[in-house]
Amino acid sequence: MKNLLFGIASAIFITPLASDAQSIEKVDTATISKIKNEGNNRSQVMSILSMLTDIHGPRLTNSPGYKRAADYAKSTLEGWGAQNVHFDVWDEDFGRGWQLKKFSLSALGPVYFPLIAHPKAWSPGIKGTVQADAIYLDIKKEEDLQQYKGKLKGKIVMFSLPTPVKPGFKPDATRLTDSTLLVMANSGADENFGGRRFTAPSEPQRLAYLKWQLCEQEGAIAVIEASPAVRLEDGTLIVSGATVPYPADAPFEGRLNSRDAKAPKILPQIVVAAEHYNRLVRQIQNGQRVKLELALETEFTPSAPGYNVIAEIPGTDLKDEIVMIGAHLDSWHGGTGSTDNGCGSAVMLEAIRILKSLGVSPRRTIRIALWGGEEQGLLGSRNYVKRILGQRLDKSYPYDSIQLKPAAQKFSIYLNMDNGSGKYRGVYLQGNQNIAPVFRAWLKPFEKQGISTLTLRNTSGTDHLSFDAIGLPGFQFIQDPIEYGTRTHHTTMDVWDKAVESDLKHNAIITAAFAWLAANRDGLAPRK
Amino acid sequence: MKNLLFGIASAIFITPLASDAQSIEKVDTATISKIKNEGNNRSQVMSILSMLTDIHGPRLTNSPGYKRAADYAKSTLEGWGAQNVHFDVWDEDFGRGWQLKKFSLSALGPVYFPLIAHPKAWSPGIKGTVQADAIYLDIKKEEDLQQYKGKLKGKIVMFSLPTPVKPGFKPDATRLTDSTLLVMANSGADENFGGRRFTAPSEPQRLAYLKWQLCEQEGAIAVIEASPAVRLEDGTLIVSGATVPYPADAPFEGRLNSRDAKAPKILPQIVVAAEHYNRLVRQIQNGQRVKLELALETEFTPSAPGYNVIAEIPGTDLKDEIVMIGAHLDSWHGGTGSTDNGCGSAVMLEAIRILKSLGVSPRRTIRIALWGGEEQGLLGSRNYVKRILGQRLDKSYPYDSIQLKPAAQKFSIYLNMDNGSGKYRGVYLQGNQNIAPVFRAWLKPFEKQGISTLTLRNTSGTDHLSFDAIGLPGFQFIQDPIEYGTRTHHTTMDVWDKAVESDLKHNAIITAAFAWLAANRDGLAPRK
Repeated sequence: MKNLLFGIASAIFITPLASDAQSIEKVDTATISKIKNEGNNRSQVMSILSMLTDIHGPRLTNSPGYKRAADYAKSTLEGWGAQNVHFDVWDEDFGRGWQLKKFSLSALGPVYFPLIAHPKAWSPGIKGTVQADAIYLDIKKEEDLQQYKGKLKGKIVMFSLPTPVKPGFKPDATRLTDSTLLVMANSGADENFGGRRFTAPSEPQRLAYLKWQLCEQEGAIAVIEASPAVRLEDGTLIVSGATVPYPADAPFEGRLNSRDAKAPKILPQIVVAAEHYNRLVRQIQNGQRVKLELALETEFTPSAPGYNVIAEIPGTDLKDEIVMIGAHLDSWHGGTGSTDNGCGSAVMLEAIRILKSLGVSPRRTIRIALWGGEEQGLLGSRNYVKRILGQRLDKSYPYDSIQLKPAAQKFSIYLNMDNGSGKYRGVYLQGNQNIAPVFRAWLKPFEKQGISTLTLRNTSGTDHLSFDAIGLPGFQFIQDPIEYGTRTHHTTMDVWDKAVESDLKHNAIITAAFAWLAANRDGLAPRK
Repeated sequence: MKNLLFGIASAIFITPLASDAQSIEKVDTATISKIKNEGNNRSQVMSILSMLTDIHGPRLTNSPGYKRAADYAKSTLEGWGAQNVHFDVWDEDFGRGWQLKKFSLSALGPVYFPLIAHPKAWSPGIKGTVQADAIYLDIKKEEDLQQYKGKLKGKIVMFSLPTPVKPGFKPDATRLTDSTLLVMANSGADENFGGRRFTAPSEPQRLAYLKWQLCEQEGAIAVIEASPAVRLEDGTLIVSGATVPYPADAPFEGRLNSRDAKAPKILPQIVVAAEHYNRLVRQIQNGQRVKLELALETEFTPSAPGYNVIAEIPGTDLKDEIVMIGAHLDSWHGGTGSTDNGCGSAVMLEAIRILKSLGVSPRRTIRIALWGGEEQGLLGSRNYVKRILGQRLDKSYPYDSIQLKPAAQKFSIYLNMDNGSGKYRGVYLQGNQNIAPVFRAWLKPFEKQGISTLTLRNTSGTDHLSFDAIGLPGFQFIQDPIEYGTRTHHTTMDVWDKAVESDLKHNAIITAAFAWLAANRDGLAPRK
């Protein structure tokens, strides 16, 4: 899941859920029983996840790992008998792929120790193995910059302040409590929001740019920083893409990312475990000379459009109408992209496998999309929606500038999973109260499985937004957090072992059931 | 703290605490106020800890790090005006020192990734950087060994089965609850215990030796294993000393350790983060060829006796009588030895600093001991006690074979800290009910600080046992666990950042106060 506006905007009005229309929503309980049986007793979700993570991961967009995983998904879908399996190439350039080829960082002195560290994605490498002194930028205000003039050449710069480390009195893993679910169930719709709101650049942002300038002008050879303190540490790092420095007040439009072929040359950038980084800071503040040894080889692949993986279970009498399920296939690179979002991709693939295994044909076409470029701004799903379904000409809300394409008239619903490994506990309705009675009927066969909460609230940060943005029904499930926000989201510990098998089985069954019911109900899914 | 018989033996009889004799125990509240003021407002405990960990750590016994830390402790104590500061050399050979000089382990294929890993102490190194295939010993019973014959030469052997990884629904850090403290307060004395009890070798132990034999006979080049699952993972490793393989039924007497100069040649041994190790297992089980790159350079220093650091604040009218405080200075090598037991050492040093800063002289001599070799079996304190105070000729309980030396008659009390960074909450009385009213009086000035629990229970695993074993008063404080048992004990995350400043300040103040009160009371501390 991308870090956009994750969290929940404040409710501005309270709308009770529409009255229950369950009596008129037909639910095919016979097929749902078969789905449960297949999904519970012959699940392949964990082995699919292992292929996506252990074998082919991580899956940074356009990287060799992404390509291997896309190839695997394509051939797997074909093997199950899905139709129209193809790479859906975007009509815009994504930028370069990137992968790590060699990395090692150690402190040689005053005491030898190997550092837990990981380079940022799209970081350049260095030639050979370099031994260099570390220099710590103890910069809290602009005047502090001056003392480092003439001192950075050939040095590895410690760019960040130390990260405070606190004992973990809260558990990493949690499930949603009834109290939390009750608040969600009783919440009204959120104010619509979208796009990036302008905020005045902060003093830390301004200072950061000055520090970057200093490092580049003075000829530093690499930049290391402490993994940030937003979550537990203990050897787990939060790592995303390398920074291309811009002045804090430069407009966002036109800024280049490190993945762009035309990006300016940047310094190698590496994240270090907070505990290890902090030790180096204390050694330096004690007057010790800290010498580091760094090897970093990275590979860039050519700039190109990104692509999604798309496949279908063709419909019958209503085959031109589309029910979609999806998740993003791409990941960050520090772990193997398990909870973000191998789990979602594995669940979507498993849902298709379950449906194909039943030997039944839906009325509408069921389409699976595994998106690329989600971590860089929902790029794969946004591009897909714009090409196929429509767009908002004005990016601001309300939806007064939506231009739909003909395919949108045949579009029913999009269902997304991208909040980690946790069990589905309900659905965020994105303010669409008309869908509530439908979902309530669909959830009836699962009333003993702890998934019953419908909230009018929006949730943000992932690919259902691309559909919701043009007024089409696009939903993300409510999921138990498990260790998503605390330990695995965008970290080096986002690995297969962090996935919870029982939860993923449950999610694949629900996804398959929802897709089946959406594909066979009397009408398209109700819109807002 | 060494892993001996940590935990609490079952109570066999209930003895109420002796009636409160507080009225006759004089407490020098004026000096205690000064101790509180110095310890709270001018504490140096965290900077002392930084010297022991960040600058000189880790402190594996007899390693260069241990020597640096011992030198630091000696000169620091001298600087504060402590007397008779010296290295107390044991009368027995400890074995060799060891330190890591270079280490890096990466998977080159099928997908490149750097492994979070750490060599075991006293592991030999390898020459240069080696690229080798990994081979996974999927051995659950003796018959499984056969398939690996002829296949291990030149390979890096994956020795252990995968470690199951579970979401962390419990917090790493806790404090003792009133309920737990109440149970302790109401507990009677434990059955005495000591020495290593013979248990029949288990099937896993038997199989482990056969696996070691196979690796050595077949010419493997190194052995890697998953960090065990007794605690949370996430990039934290549990690492101790390298194994010298012995048949499971070989007698313990006469077994050599990897530190011994005469130890047989063993294979390099490395612990890998469970999540990373498990990934390699799954890759291999998927039919992938896993290729690893390993660099490992280690340094052995000559075999020699170990040594403790000892210093004194000389007494006055009762200067021949001794009050001791202590903690072990040595540590394991994966982190910097912070909570085990830099914290204890820093607290003991800080207690001496506080007392010296007051410019007062105790009646009895207050002696600080920073022990070596604790992690290898309380070696430093045991050797000290045997040389200076006495020994049990028969290692079994009850104390019917204790032979005390004259110095034991002048010995009052030994106070130890070695259960992590957590706040003192009381004292384990080791069945000594006679001391209860004394400690209760001493704790009175701290009644608002949450330290009031006296339990007759024993606690095990650290250096107070060496005194307790010959019937002298030796005590370990009850401490809040914080992250000791879950995250830092013998792990790579046993680092400065895991120490809790407020708790260490509290502990130094209590230690100084107890030492002062013990040194100035009317008599020696009551014995069992």
